[in-house]
Amino acid sequence: MNTSAGKKAVVLLSGGLDSATALAMAADRGYDCYVLSFDYGQRSLTELNAAKEIAKQLNAREHRVIRLHLEDFGGSALTDHSIDVPEEETDDIPVTYVPARNTVFLSLALGWAEVLEADSIFIGVNAVDYSGYPDCRPEYIAAFETMANLATKRGVNGDPIKIETPLIDLTKEAIIQEGTRLGVDYGLTVSCYQADDSGRACGNCDSCRLRALGFTDAGLEDPTRYQ
Amino acid sequence: MNTSAGKKAVVLLSGGLDSATALAMAADRGYDCYVLSFDYGQRSLTELNAAKEIAKQLNAREHRVIRLHLEDFGGSALTDHSIDVPEEETDDIPVTYVPARNTVFLSLALGWAEVLEADSIFIGVNAVDYSGYPDCRPEYIAAFETMANLATKRGVNGDPIKIETPLIDLTKEAIIQEGTRLGVDYGLTVSCYQADDSGRACGNCDSCRLRALGFTDAGLEDPTRYQ
Repeated sequence: MNTSAGKKAVVLLSGGLDSATALAMAADRGYDCYVLSFDYGQRSLTELNAAKEIAKQLNAREHRVIRLHLEDFGGSALTDHSIDVPEEETDDIPVTYVPARNTVFLSLALGWAEVLEADSIFIGVNAVDYSGYPDCRPEYIAAFETMANLATKRGVNGDPIKIETPLIDLTKEAIIQEGTRLGVDYGLTVSCYQADDSGRACGNCDSCRLRALGFTDAGLEDPTRYQ
Repeated sequence: MNTSAGKKAVVLLSGGLDSATALAMAADRGYDCYVLSFDYGQRSLTELNAAKEIAKQLNAREHRVIRLHLEDFGGSALTDHSIDVPEEETDDIPVTYVPARNTVFLSLALGWAEVLEADSIFIGVNAVDYSGYPDCRPEYIAAFETMANLATKRGVNGDPIKIETPLIDLTKEAIIQEGTRLGVDYGLTVSCYQADDSGRACGNCDSCRLRALGFTDAGLEDPTRYQ
């Protein structure tokens, strides 16, 4: 499409399926992509290795990994190793919730975007399969964008930054179809909450099950490497 | 006053005059104070040493220092050592601006507040002497609070968190008078952009000049240690 040729975007990349697709979509729109990942004490460091490979495969202009010690705060199964990762879905907000995660990640992306004079920040949040995370909802993203444009020189000077959520209304099936069309190598991506050191998935956690169902629904072979 | 006895607040503390006063005001309102500081590549590490002393003096329940590598993004005289700190005021947003700083700091405070089930976050921003930082304005703080309550379990469950800015409308003179009344030892605080290793101030930068004028206007002796 190239409607944004020469413009810069900061793209949040976890190394999972959704954020890899968001990166491919930003690149497809013609943005120069500055990719940002976080080492925040998550169990799956393999996700970060995946992020490096994905950024390379999708021709990111730069890829930075910021070390953040959210595990100091505790409070989530993803960073507190004393809490088990649940294998069953519940109606409540899950214990895999990391406190204020998207807010922290978007805030740091905003800092880099300001220095780069980037036009947009891409985040692969999804309100369909959002698993009860409040910071994946459209009303949250809209409020973040409003706040961001009051926080920064760019916003004050009348040239607002956009928070882009190209996956927000897509089913997992549609995300996988779009990413496949754009050449994402999903064999590189890691979605599992408890992947092993070489990136192989457990096949049992919520994230694994949603992902496998997505490939089935999309009628595509699942390239995920299982344990 | 003790209207908030038994409630918890996360208080952002830089080690400067304003945030020390905000901490004293939170404690005076009866909050148990959980103090958060950042090591973000600022020139004055002496500020962080000051923060530790101030948190102790004002009986903080806990004090955590989070290491953040904002200097990786560049773009500010406070973290980019290749840019000189200006001694003259200008009408523009100053180069001492750190990209998205208050947004990053408040976001991390929000994460800790969620884990602690804190009721409030205190930040010592000031819209009177705000030196052109867009993220010190009341409309920014209001937008952050709205976003924070859409981002978090607590907000979703109808028990919103408050972003408290007790200094926002105070002159430097009034801040110093209030802090003195509450027993803040301003000799411990460091406001200078280029303090030396033992915390002695340059006396020439914007921050030093505003501070010195505040003590003069308050009719109080200036306890600042100068180089």
